[in-house]
Amino acid sequence: MWVIDDQQYLGQLDGWNRAAQFADGLFETMMVNHGEIVGLKYHVTRLSAGLKRLDIKPPASNLADMLSSFAHKLSELSGVKSGVLKVIISRGDSARGYGYVETIQPHVTAFYNEQPVLSDHIYTQGVVVESLQTQCAVQPQLAGIKHLNRLENVLAKKELGNRAFEGLMFNHLGFAIEGISSNVFFEKDNQLFTPDLTLSGVAGVMRECVLSFAQSHKIKINLDNISVTQLERFSQGFICNSVMGIVPISSLDGRSLEIGPVTQSIQDAWKDGVIYA
Amino acid sequence: MWVIDDQQYLGQLDGWNRAAQFADGLFETMMVNHGEIVGLKYHVTRLSAGLKRLDIKPPASNLADMLSSFAHKLSELSGVKSGVLKVIISRGDSARGYGYVETIQPHVTAFYNEQPVLSDHIYTQGVVVESLQTQCAVQPQLAGIKHLNRLENVLAKKELGNRAFEGLMFNHLGFAIEGISSNVFFEKDNQLFTPDLTLSGVAGVMRECVLSFAQSHKIKINLDNISVTQLERFSQGFICNSVMGIVPISSLDGRSLEIGPVTQSIQDAWKDGVIYA
Repeated sequence: MWVIDDQQYLGQLDGWNRAAQFADGLFETMMVNHGEIVGLKYHVTRLSAGLKRLDIKPPASNLADMLSSFAHKLSELSGVKSGVLKVIISRGDSARGYGYVETIQPHVTAFYNEQPVLSDHIYTQGVVVESLQTQCAVQPQLAGIKHLNRLENVLAKKELGNRAFEGLMFNHLGFAIEGISSNVFFEKDNQLFTPDLTLSGVAGVMRECVLSFAQSHKIKINLDNISVTQLERFSQGFICNSVMGIVPISSLDGRSLEIGPVTQSIQDAWKDGVIYA
Repeated sequence: MWVIDDQQYLGQLDGWNRAAQFADGLFETMMVNHGEIVGLKYHVTRLSAGLKRLDIKPPASNLADMLSSFAHKLSELSGVKSGVLKVIISRGDSARGYGYVETIQPHVTAFYNEQPVLSDHIYTQGVVVESLQTQCAVQPQLAGIKHLNRLENVLAKKELGNRAFEGLMFNHLGFAIEGISSNVFFEKDNQLFTPDLTLSGVAGVMRECVLSFAQSHKIKINLDNISVTQLERFSQGFICNSVMGIVPISSLDGRSLEIGPVTQSIQDAWKDGVIYA
C-alpha cells in the first residue's frame, strides 16, 4: 500500500482530522488502469454532490484533475500501473466539538493498492448473496452520498463472514437497500429494478453507469422500495461496484437465480468499457 | 490541545486507522478535575458496552486504569489540572476494505483540552433549545453507544448555528431523540420523561447518572417515544452531558419553559457530585 497526503508521500493524519474524529467527510474508491481512473466523470459527479450536501469546500478547483493527478503519482511511485485508488476528503482539522470555523480547509488523503484478483467464474456463473440482519441507517440527509460513516458496513461484513460473496442489507423500514460494498439490481421481463436510495444507502458509481446505460438503451428502470416479499419474485439480478464491475447473482438466500439477457448486455457493456460513456 | 497516542506523545494517526477510514470505533468525552475523571465508572460502563456491541477488542484489561492514566499524564504534561479528555478507540489499522483480520489490535488516541467556560446564567436561567431538521439515523444496532459515525451531529451543529444554545434532533419516525451533544429530559407532575434510545441516539453518561439518581430517589422515569405533539405538552425540562452537567431549558421552539422541582434537585445533585454515586 502507498499513501499520499496533500501532495506529500505520507502515511500519517493529524489526530484532529475530522475524518478520524467524526467521520466528517467523503471518500471515493476508483479503479486505475494504466495510470488512468476508470469512469472518472462519474466519480467526480458523485464527489461533487457529496461535498455540496455536506457543505465541505472542494479541495481543488478541478476535482477531475486532482483525482487524476493522484492516480498518476501513485501509479508512478508504486510502479503499479493498474490499481485501486481510494481518496478520503475530510472537512479539515479542528479541536474538540462538532462545530467548525468558516475558514476550515479540507484535507485530502489518497491511498493506493493493487487491484484485487477476481475469478472469471464470478462473471460467468454468478455469486452467492445472502440477506443480513445488519441494517442500513434510515437517514435521508446522508443517503446516496459516499460519506465516511461506514460502521454499519463494517458490522455487515463481519456478520457475512465467509458464508457468501456478498450480503444484502435492508433498512429499518424493511426495504432492501444494497450490498455491503455494492449496489443491487434485479431483472424481470427485460426491465431492471433497483432500490430507491432516498432514505438509506450509497448511490454507487457503477449504479449510475448502469442507470445511464439503461436510459440510453431504452431499458426500463424501476427505482422503488423493494420489500422481502417483492424480492422473492425476482429470478434474475446482479450486484455492481466500481472495482468488480457487473457480477450476476447465482443464488439469493439459497434460491437459485439465472443470468438474464439485460444483465448479460450490461455486463458486456462494462467489459467493453461502453458503460462509462 | 495536547494529544497522546498509545502512550506516546504524538499528534498523528496512521492513515489506515479505521477511525479515519470507516469511523470504525468509539469515543468518550470526560471531565477531568484535578487530574481525575469525573463519573469514571459510568464512562467505563458505556465504553465497555460499545466495545462489546461493535466486537472491538478492549484496548486494556482495565479500562478504568487506562482512562485514568491518560487523565493523569495529560493533566501533568499540559499543566492543566482540570480539562476535558477525549479518547478515541478504533478497531485498529487495516488496508482497504470493510473486513478485518481476527488479530487486529485496537488503537487508542487521547486528546486533552481546557474546560469550556460556561456562564452561571445557563444553570439558573436555563437555555434556549430549538428543533432541527437534521435527523438522527434510525439504526438500532448503533443506537445508544458513542460510536464515531457523527456526521449527523456535525450537520445538526451547522444547521443550529448561533440561533440557540442547543438543537433538538428527531429521527425519521418523527420522535424526539436528543440534543446535538446532550440528552434531553422533560418534567411533568414530578415525573421525568426522556426519549427511548432503542432506534436512534447516544445514551450519554450524564443521562445514565440521572436515570440512576432518579431510581434511587423514587423519581418516576418514563422512557418512551416522544412525538412533536407530546413534546408540546411539557413545560419543564433540561439537557445534560458530561461536560456541562444539568442545564434547564428556558425556551423550546419559542415556548417558555420553567425550571421544575425535579430538575432543580437533579441539578443540585450534580453540583454536589452526589449524582455520580
